[in-house]
Amino acid sequence: MEHVTHIKVRYYETDQMGVVHHSNYIRYFEIAREEMMEHYGIPYKETESRGIIMPVHTLQCDYIHPAKYGEILTVITRLEELPRSRITFRYSILNPSDVLLAKGFVTLAFVDSTRGVPVRAPLFLTEVLEKYLNL
Amino acid sequence: MEHVTHIKVRYYETDQMGVVHHSNYIRYFEIAREEMMEHYGIPYKETESRGIIMPVHTLQCDYIHPAKYGEILTVITRLEELPRSRITFRYSILNPSDVLLAKGFVTLAFVDSTRGVPVRAPLFLTEVLEKYLNL
Amino acid sequence: MEHVTHIKVRYYETDQMGVVHHSNYIRYFEIAREEMMEHYGIPYKETESRGIIMPVHTLQCDYIHPAKYGEILTVITRLEELPRSRITFRYSILNPSDVLLAKGFVTLAFVDSTRGVPVRAPLFLTEVLEKYLNL
Amino acid sequence: MEHVTHIKVRYYETDQMGVVHHSNYIRYFEIAREEMMEHYGIPYKETESRGIIMPVHTLQCDYIHPAKYGEILTVITRLEELPRSRITFRYSILNPSDVLLAKGFVTLAFVDSTRGVPVRAPLFLTEVLEKYLNL
Repeated sequence: MEHVTHIKVRYYETDQMGVVHHSNYIRYFEIAREEMMEHYGIPYKETESRGIIMPVHTLQCDYIHPAKYGEILTVITRLEELPRSRITFRYSILNPSDVLLAKGFVTLAFVDSTRGVPVRAPLFLTEVLEKYLNL
Repeated sequence: MEHVTHIKVRYYETDQMGVVHHSNYIRYFEIAREEMMEHYGIPYKETESRGIIMPVHTLQCDYIHPAKYGEILTVITRLEELPRSRITFRYSILNPSDVLLAKGFVTLAFVDSTRGVPVRAPLFLTEVLEKYLNL
Repeated sequence: MEHVTHIKVRYYETDQMGVVHHSNYIRYFEIAREEMMEHYGIPYKETESRGIIMPVHTLQCDYIHPAKYGEILTVITRLEELPRSRITFRYSILNPSDVLLAKGFVTLAFVDSTRGVPVRAPLFLTEVLEKYLNL
Repeated sequence: MEHVTHIKVRYYETDQMGVVHHSNYIRYFEIAREEMMEHYGIPYKETESRGIIMPVHTLQCDYIHPAKYGEILTVITRLEELPRSRITFRYSILNPSDVLLAKGFVTLAFVDSTRGVPVRAPLFLTEVLEKYLNL
């Protein structure tokens, strides 16, 4: 299961090295997984309104080549396993010349927002993902 | 009523112009007014926990000279009138050589966070400010 | 001369008030004017590569109604006068229900990036703007 | 070699989950390693002015417990090996009740800023670190 998102680099995301500050890739990952989930009919806004929040549990990012202001980046998001107590998104970010800029993953937990306790991946989410996972 | 806050410029606050991105001055204003209120015994955290949120109503900033990475900035925050339905903080930001970098103001409203309606400045706040306003 | 840009609110742009942090509107303004200039064939990237940087000189923003996560905002950018030593962009931000969220303006200077001194609006910019200003 | 930095959580660093957005921990890591290097007499500003930039090569962060607005966090930064072509900082972040909030590491490269090529850790840096590494 794979989704492609395009993100245009904003001026305020650069730093005085003249390239995108590394912390912003973590934000690109977030945008990309939310676009993916929205594409499959389960926007994160709805997940939250159903009482499930998804805090980040762990993340990793390898930086290979810098991104520059104004570039339209391609973020490829992959979901390879059905979520149980956690869900892992894997990412590749490419620039307009198809150079690989970064690779990484983010694992998120599911938390019942009223009780504040970790829960299993909710059915309304796994049901959708099951349908698309091996496409 | 005046308060001085020192803020060290962080690397991620710079942009590819090699100076602090202008949007961060607005964030410095916020930090400075919160330090001021905390200094006077009414931290914003407490204001929120008493059910009052303070959304920004209007702001203005003049940029005179750029701030640079690593500089310890001096933010002078002034409160000149007792708040009624709104509160206005006035700011000057200086660099370590005492050069004026920016001037501005931020006006905030008071909103009852449960009902979502604007309210008067709460007593626990005006009582403290009254004591110090003309010092 | 008017340009419409759509910006989707990102999760990291919200704060614990549950709405978009006010500093991000200043960043939306920047995105919108850059989209406008790019639309008219003079992307800011090119302005910089021609040796002109455009630091912000002054800005103002009135906040009327909060923006929420996931909303696709409409930013209307207007340019009403030909730039001379400065250029002023005027903004309105609306939410998907066409409610006015914020109004403001940003004035920028033109600076020769090699010499670090203010200059007049460059010809390659005014020539284009002249053509479209009263459309 | 270990250094302790205190960072106060800013309002704009929170998101609508009511806690610090996960991307900001990556920024806290940056602040902490810069404070450490400055403490040992080699501020990053000087490294850059000597023609060496240090782009991030890889990073990882485990999130254990959320940080809240207004908390003064303790960031412990550790340097365990002398840098060669790369340098690795290891981090723990604790809240005021000494609860471990996050753990992670960041590996940075050394790049000659004029030629844009990776280089060995510069002498002015390794000489200082050698002195303190096993203290």
